[in-house]
Amino acid sequence: MFQQLFDSIQEKVTVTPAEMDICKTFFIPKKLRKKQTLLQEGDICIHNAFVEKGIMRSFFTDEKGNEHIVQFAIEGWWITDLSSFLTKSNSIYTIEALEDCELLLLTMEARETLIDKIPMFERYQRLLLQNAYIANQARINSALTETAEEKYVKVGLAYPGIIKRVPQHMIASYLGLKPETLSRVRKQISTRI
Amino acid sequence: MFQQLFDSIQEKVTVTPAEMDICKTFFIPKKLRKKQTLLQEGDICIHNAFVEKGIMRSFFTDEKGNEHIVQFAIEGWWITDLSSFLTKSNSIYTIEALEDCELLLLTMEARETLIDKIPMFERYQRLLLQNAYIANQARINSALTETAEEKYVKVGLAYPGIIKRVPQHMIASYLGLKPETLSRVRKQISTRI
Repeated sequence: MFQQLFDSIQEKVTVTPAEMDICKTFFIPKKLRKKQTLLQEGDICIHNAFVEKGIMRSFFTDEKGNEHIVQFAIEGWWITDLSSFLTKSNSIYTIEALEDCELLLLTMEARETLIDKIPMFERYQRLLLQNAYIANQARINSALTETAEEKYVKVGLAYPGIIKRVPQHMIASYLGLKPETLSRVRKQISTRI
Repeated sequence: MFQQLFDSIQEKVTVTPAEMDICKTFFIPKKLRKKQTLLQEGDICIHNAFVEKGIMRSFFTDEKGNEHIVQFAIEGWWITDLSSFLTKSNSIYTIEALEDCELLLLTMEARETLIDKIPMFERYQRLLLQNAYIANQARINSALTETAEEKYVKVGLAYPGIIKRVPQHMIASYLGLKPETLSRVRKQISTRI
């Protein structure tokens, strides 16, 4: 159950087997069936979730009832509403399983204790945050400057595992495109290959 | 010169005076006159800058020649292109002084050494990253869901120091609004007060 997490940690920092064993005790394993939620809009996000198996998404619904996908997370990724998790404010997101999922959950208290006990876990968290920040920044820039085709090609190259496992209308939602726009873009690309 | 930085660190973590003295040796003081740049688009961002005095902005220019403001930073804030800084890639941003500024600069090497020497500096950096991530997330949500008036009111409440010191066309650029839209919104608000 902990293999993906161990790989993720060891990819970024060096920890001893003993530290890994301590680490393990702080996580709560959780299984979700497809379409079950980890967090519902309006609730406080009390877990930072690591995906051992499956694929999750976070999204919010605007006033017109349209869903906007904020993030996907496959094996080896973290997903949470960091803002709600850290500030204990009500979340505007829903976090849902798109396949049957196996998660490892970390509460705020467990995270703080773990950070105090194992300094390398603090470094691991900092490096995750750096990557998340960079990804968010890239997304803002992409939204402001790129064409539909550029956005689709870029996300396809960066996350081939996601493009294959997620319905196209969700990819469109993630990219801020209408489903018909994405469909047209995909046709254009396929005629050129 | 280091007062704002010390306040910023002590607001988030506990460090000893001796650690503060070590900290000081890693920063390079730098003065910029109004309109001088810390970073130019196309260069690699080699500094993470802390603002002791003045106000900075980062922005990029789109293909049509329009400037988009990504961030302002006043006293007590950090500014950098984190993506370029961390990955040593060419920056798409320019970082410029909007007033005469006094900065404290940290190179990547200095930052890494400081993090190794003073664990609380690593925590400080993690907490800064958390805040930056939350602010970015809020900005993405705002861009997707809020009206021009909501955006302006929110930024005015959150950052009154910036609204007063920065030309209105730059506030408009930061909010992704046309200057004339912002002008109309401000008139609407003032007739109601």
